[in-house]
Amino acid sequence: MEKSALLHRPDSEYAYLYEQDEFHIRLRTKKGDVTSVNVIKGDPYLIGEDRWYLDSEPMTLLTSTEQFDYWLIKTTAAFRRLQYGFHVVGHDQEVFYGDRGIFDYDSEVIAKAENYFRMPYFQEMDRFKAPQWVKETVWYQIFPERFANGDPSNDPKGTLPWSSKEHPGREDFFGGDLQGVIDHLDYLVDLGINGIYFCPIFKAHSNHKYDTIDYFEIDPDFGDKATFKTLVDEAHKRGIKIMLDAVFNHMGYHSPQWQDVIKNEGQSQYADWFHIHSYPVEFGTNGNQEGAKTVSYDTFAFTPRMPKLNTANPEVQAYLLEIATYWIEEFDIDAWRLDVANEVDHHFWKKFYSETVAIKEDFYILGEIWHSSQSWLNGDEFHAVMNYAYTETIANFFVAQSISASKLVSGLNEQLMLYRQQTNEVMFNMLDSHDTARLLTIADEDKAVAQMTLAFTFLQHGSPCIYYGTEVGMTGENDPDCRKTMVWEQERQDQQFLAFTKELIQLRKDYQPVLSLGTLDFILADDTHQVVGFKRETDSQILTAYFNRGTDSQSYQKTADQKVVMSRLADTLIQPKGFVVLVQAK
Amino acid sequence: MEKSALLHRPDSEYAYLYEQDEFHIRLRTKKGDVTSVNVIKGDPYLIGEDRWYLDSEPMTLLTSTEQFDYWLIKTTAAFRRLQYGFHVVGHDQEVFYGDRGIFDYDSEVIAKAENYFRMPYFQEMDRFKAPQWVKETVWYQIFPERFANGDPSNDPKGTLPWSSKEHPGREDFFGGDLQGVIDHLDYLVDLGINGIYFCPIFKAHSNHKYDTIDYFEIDPDFGDKATFKTLVDEAHKRGIKIMLDAVFNHMGYHSPQWQDVIKNEGQSQYADWFHIHSYPVEFGTNGNQEGAKTVSYDTFAFTPRMPKLNTANPEVQAYLLEIATYWIEEFDIDAWRLDVANEVDHHFWKKFYSETVAIKEDFYILGEIWHSSQSWLNGDEFHAVMNYAYTETIANFFVAQSISASKLVSGLNEQLMLYRQQTNEVMFNMLDSHDTARLLTIADEDKAVAQMTLAFTFLQHGSPCIYYGTEVGMTGENDPDCRKTMVWEQERQDQQFLAFTKELIQLRKDYQPVLSLGTLDFILADDTHQVVGFKRETDSQILTAYFNRGTDSQSYQKTADQKVVMSRLADTLIQPKGFVVLVQAK
Repeated sequence: MEKSALLHRPDSEYAYLYEQDEFHIRLRTKKGDVTSVNVIKGDPYLIGEDRWYLDSEPMTLLTSTEQFDYWLIKTTAAFRRLQYGFHVVGHDQEVFYGDRGIFDYDSEVIAKAENYFRMPYFQEMDRFKAPQWVKETVWYQIFPERFANGDPSNDPKGTLPWSSKEHPGREDFFGGDLQGVIDHLDYLVDLGINGIYFCPIFKAHSNHKYDTIDYFEIDPDFGDKATFKTLVDEAHKRGIKIMLDAVFNHMGYHSPQWQDVIKNEGQSQYADWFHIHSYPVEFGTNGNQEGAKTVSYDTFAFTPRMPKLNTANPEVQAYLLEIATYWIEEFDIDAWRLDVANEVDHHFWKKFYSETVAIKEDFYILGEIWHSSQSWLNGDEFHAVMNYAYTETIANFFVAQSISASKLVSGLNEQLMLYRQQTNEVMFNMLDSHDTARLLTIADEDKAVAQMTLAFTFLQHGSPCIYYGTEVGMTGENDPDCRKTMVWEQERQDQQFLAFTKELIQLRKDYQPVLSLGTLDFILADDTHQVVGFKRETDSQILTAYFNRGTDSQSYQKTADQKVVMSRLADTLIQPKGFVVLVQAK
Repeated sequence: MEKSALLHRPDSEYAYLYEQDEFHIRLRTKKGDVTSVNVIKGDPYLIGEDRWYLDSEPMTLLTSTEQFDYWLIKTTAAFRRLQYGFHVVGHDQEVFYGDRGIFDYDSEVIAKAENYFRMPYFQEMDRFKAPQWVKETVWYQIFPERFANGDPSNDPKGTLPWSSKEHPGREDFFGGDLQGVIDHLDYLVDLGINGIYFCPIFKAHSNHKYDTIDYFEIDPDFGDKATFKTLVDEAHKRGIKIMLDAVFNHMGYHSPQWQDVIKNEGQSQYADWFHIHSYPVEFGTNGNQEGAKTVSYDTFAFTPRMPKLNTANPEVQAYLLEIATYWIEEFDIDAWRLDVANEVDHHFWKKFYSETVAIKEDFYILGEIWHSSQSWLNGDEFHAVMNYAYTETIANFFVAQSISASKLVSGLNEQLMLYRQQTNEVMFNMLDSHDTARLLTIADEDKAVAQMTLAFTFLQHGSPCIYYGTEVGMTGENDPDCRKTMVWEQERQDQQFLAFTKELIQLRKDYQPVLSLGTLDFILADDTHQVVGFKRETDSQILTAYFNRGTDSQSYQKTADQKVVMSRLADTLIQPKGFVVLVQAK
């Protein structure tokens, strides 16, 4: 047995409360190295008296990656306290793994209290709680300047006619606004989505509004507070939740705070609102190494027009928290998406979490983080992150075809094992956005590929998101090209793509419990033919799906009690770029 | 190379800010499996532009355990943001290890931004900050009822004469009080300690006072607030810090809150202060399984007289936080030791941390946790825990002789690798306490063994603690026997042990920088002769020590520039149970 591969970490994604009295314990072992694992567990204060260490319970093999097997047990504790250790059985030896390391399995070792990991008390207060509605949500991302122009009276000077440019420029304005969204809410209802994720709508200089001037104002190009209030109310009436984008890592160059710093330098009352190293605040001119990046203040990336906020300053905290709560209290928004969330401090996000969730218990907090995010996902900062690592792996297999079927499965399982089950259930899964090329474009405009990729994503854990226009076959390279004006003329819309998307969204809703809460097991990863199959399962239902990304038609197993609920390029065989989804009762 | 053994975890003890601009990165590999590791790192926003991934820096082998090697690099980042990955060179292959797993080392892999781990921004706000004074502190633990009776007028009814019982009973009172401590402050100064850790002093029923009645009152058997104020002031005048014991997991049966619950049941205003499952609140009578442990309310362990507090209740939080801050603000205490800290929720401790440290920036928070404690030691809950796992390993080698020299070294290194460097520097290391048998007793009254064990502990990372009376050779089995009255008559004190302890404390002070901040490297672990040697090192000094726990005399290396600064049973040879400490300038 490869003992150096054994891994468990108390009070983490390896050991957590899923429900108030349901505790999940995971263990990692080297792949194929271990034949069974038993958990030995009991109340810490009864170890001698009850001799509970004489019993054990088997773990189940939860999932595997190229490198590892992951084992799981769901358990509870009569007195809400637990001591636990692992009896690991390999092909050649048995060991006990606990808080003091790995020992040969023997009766003396298992009788010692200090050898066990601890879940000291089932703290409901500390449990990661995910909002139920997110598990049932299909998101739709709107870049407001480009979705619809409902009110020409607020068009900024120089607004270009809608659809007038095949490739929008970085500084273009087309007059999209909130009234445009209100006007098309019924379109969204018909599409089937039930959550809108808005890119920033607050007063800012650029068309993307990531350079905030005033977080308390709707950008006048987009409308006003009354319009926004109407939008939220009308959306809610239709069962659609609203998520706004909070850009709290940095402010805009044109904000009064930053302008004050430029003018008054160290004397500015806002001097400590930012990270300023020297005056005058300049960029690229303050170093002595020629050609080196130099800054006299910290910025987002190397973008001088986005000075980074000092969230350790209590004034800044109070200011941002007032914003965070204002839009919930006054406008009843349902979620915040946090821009560049990883570059803001944990202390601030913990305050953000407690203040927002205190107002609205099932509020959803989504962080923009592109890398592994365990330290933000312990239940007191974010509920989820934008799941780039997961969806990139999907795209690498289906679109770029840069990885094999088994690499796809391994990569996805690896990502799932980074987080608690309840986190995975509310992860935010998108294949494209305002920051990336569009799905159809990266798929070389191969609709079948784009659609099978979307379908696969919709059948995973987490809540999927459609980037505006993807449903009607819009294309676009990296930004600003991915920010074209929405196509509204039916004849220019891809009606087949639209019908497909509706069917997919409906599928997600029809099989909501099994798709949002069911287990996920990959049952096929055929590297020769590039076919993958997986099973989602609850106590009452099994959903099975097969995707063929190879070049040959593939047969698949279908039993009498399985019903085909969606398919493309598939009947008794699955054609290349085809897939099939089957459902059966249990 | 055993790839399944590679381990790194961003934003943890594997990747943390040590100083404002000093970032530590650790990597774990299988022991002996890897010949070198290089870190490839740079600013996330410059990966393409600067092509920093073409360079790398070597990590140093920090320490080893039986199973693993641990590598370290101390680094910084010009723009306070870092992306990093590991180029791991084994005997047979080279790999790149980063955020997306392990890859064959090649130029395509290292050029991809998503393959790197991230330290998104050096957040000074989130950095773990340890109080400097703790690194320089030698603690002395006082069980107030048994240290000294300075004021017979406050003796409880039935107080027994001091020293009248060889073995104190569980319910005995001997009249120890705060005036007794004041009277002996000069004794403590002479001994050399500079921190007192008091067992509970608040109003309670028992002699140990862990069953609090009123956290706002000094127990009348111990004195009053004026006496305590004098004690703190006089201690501070002498450079001695004061740590009190906060029992916030549970209250006492006789507290007005619990009495109100007993009387008014669900109607009590304190009903939600506890975890009550049914009324009447009873213990052991509410089940239907004969002989099974049953509770109608949660308690500390199965102690019905210690009902567990519901720290998720904001009223309870406010109450406990008022207590926590009151004793700092009004009496200027320097530290809280938190009883049963692991069974109280993280949310509460985070509030506790921010409120106490806001009053006194270098306040010290010490949790009682017996198992691995990473999730409490991220810089926003505790500074340290009572380091049982570490000191037990020491005792297992020196006292119980149940482990070999190499197991000792492996066990200690394993514990050190659980925490950030700054945590290890302020860990609380005690060999005995009011909860355990006394050191001399577990050492079978072999003074040489007890003393070499103390000496070894004093030379480790962390702040050591002496349990009252250990310095004069007191003995005692598990409690209540370890709570004998302090021996004050010089003729009954072991003067040799006292002189030894003073010399040891003085050594700790004389070589404070190297002992509190120096690196720790074990240079010898001889399992045949049970000899261990280690080196502590700063930029200016090296301290080397050898301990012989075997049965033969051992020679040791001493160079001309090394000076013997302390030794027992050692000259040119180290006798069994002997040790030697050498110092040299660099």
